[in-house]
Amino acid sequence: MKTIEVCLTPELIHQHNLEGRVVVVVDIFRATSCIVTGLAGGVKSIRPVREIEETKALGQEGYIMAGERGGEKVDGFDIGNSPFEYQDEAIKGKRVAISTTNGSQAILKSDGASQILIGAFLNLESLVEYLVQLPQSVVIHCAGWKGTPNLEDTLFAGALIDEVMEELMPLGDSALIAHWLYVSAHENLLGVALDSSHAKRLKDFGIKEDLEFCMENSKYQVVPKLVGKELVI
Amino acid sequence: MKTIEVCLTPELIHQHNLEGRVVVVVDIFRATSCIVTGLAGGVKSIRPVREIEETKALGQEGYIMAGERGGEKVDGFDIGNSPFEYQDEAIKGKRVAISTTNGSQAILKSDGASQILIGAFLNLESLVEYLVQLPQSVVIHCAGWKGTPNLEDTLFAGALIDEVMEELMPLGDSALIAHWLYVSAHENLLGVALDSSHAKRLKDFGIKEDLEFCMENSKYQVVPKLVGKELVI
Repeated sequence: MKTIEVCLTPELIHQHNLEGRVVVVVDIFRATSCIVTGLAGGVKSIRPVREIEETKALGQEGYIMAGERGGEKVDGFDIGNSPFEYQDEAIKGKRVAISTTNGSQAILKSDGASQILIGAFLNLESLVEYLVQLPQSVVIHCAGWKGTPNLEDTLFAGALIDEVMEELMPLGDSALIAHWLYVSAHENLLGVALDSSHAKRLKDFGIKEDLEFCMENSKYQVVPKLVGKELVI
Repeated sequence: MKTIEVCLTPELIHQHNLEGRVVVVVDIFRATSCIVTGLAGGVKSIRPVREIEETKALGQEGYIMAGERGGEKVDGFDIGNSPFEYQDEAIKGKRVAISTTNGSQAILKSDGASQILIGAFLNLESLVEYLVQLPQSVVIHCAGWKGTPNLEDTLFAGALIDEVMEELMPLGDSALIAHWLYVSAHENLLGVALDSSHAKRLKDFGIKEDLEFCMENSKYQVVPKLVGKELVI
């Protein structure tokens, strides 16, 4: 039977064998929610980038420069890390280069997998449909916060496991922990997620609407996938 | 207000500031359950040791040599890692040197804390009483399994938080995850713990009784503490 594992933070990704597996990268607040929103809304492609300087170099080549450090838009970038910015008509059809504290780093650390996909509550249903028909086992790679596990990404991992566990067997205790967390919290998902440390940090920037948007279930029917250096649908 | 954090695996302990904090080391299956059982039963002291060779050197000095690798007793050691072995009359009043895959390593990696304590379901109530009257904040250091988070240690972290959260505020998302897990699972703690990956591995050695014993709540009224290189009560 195919399996589904959970890596609670990029600092533990070396404990998972990614070869021949499909990795689903998750950064609910907010990078992977932004990526899903942007690609569903007509952005041509999104390129995850490690460094700010590299993003700026891509800006010279015509990319929209996107991203944050410590939750705030980087000086000189075109957009920050709000899903609402990714709905802007001005970026339709454009290529975006994104560099964030957690999410884009987790994508780059998933190197070696047979496929790298993007997961968020916003595309949960489409992701489930896609994963169950694949022959490979799955590793959910939670971006966490600065190397630590976080609540909202773990909640999402639990939600995804809950949907696929008839076809993919949860493997390892992190998967069990994530699933139990989801079982506890699923009747008040938004409330629990807004109680996370990262949500509290972000609320100080006045972006509660962003957080509520990121927790919407299956708003978009897309499964972003890394092809070469670019995420596309 | 004092705080209580959770470190889900020793591989993430560098993310926690231990200075001035009390660390509670947890390895439910089975090292910290053994330590509590042994010291409650009259063992003089227990010394956590990293390497097998170092344990054997201490054996030459009169220590009881204890421990396992991969769940099985080390060749040439006096006892393995079962709490029932720690109840043996023959080791009363003796000093024990213990080297295990996860637990004794986690104790040694807690260096720098103002106090290092040993936690298990077996001494939960006494630990709670001790912690709430201390002035310091607390870090629960889960030993996990070979660097990965595990279910039973995380469950214990959640149970401890549940008991002390009026006096110690849960800090960081790992604490929230552990507490939600406990809230989900507390009505069937034994069943959930026996479903953990490590429990399944250990059951193959025919030691289900060990696991059930380790999940008994507050059987002993001791709080083992590291003094110099030795755990004592």
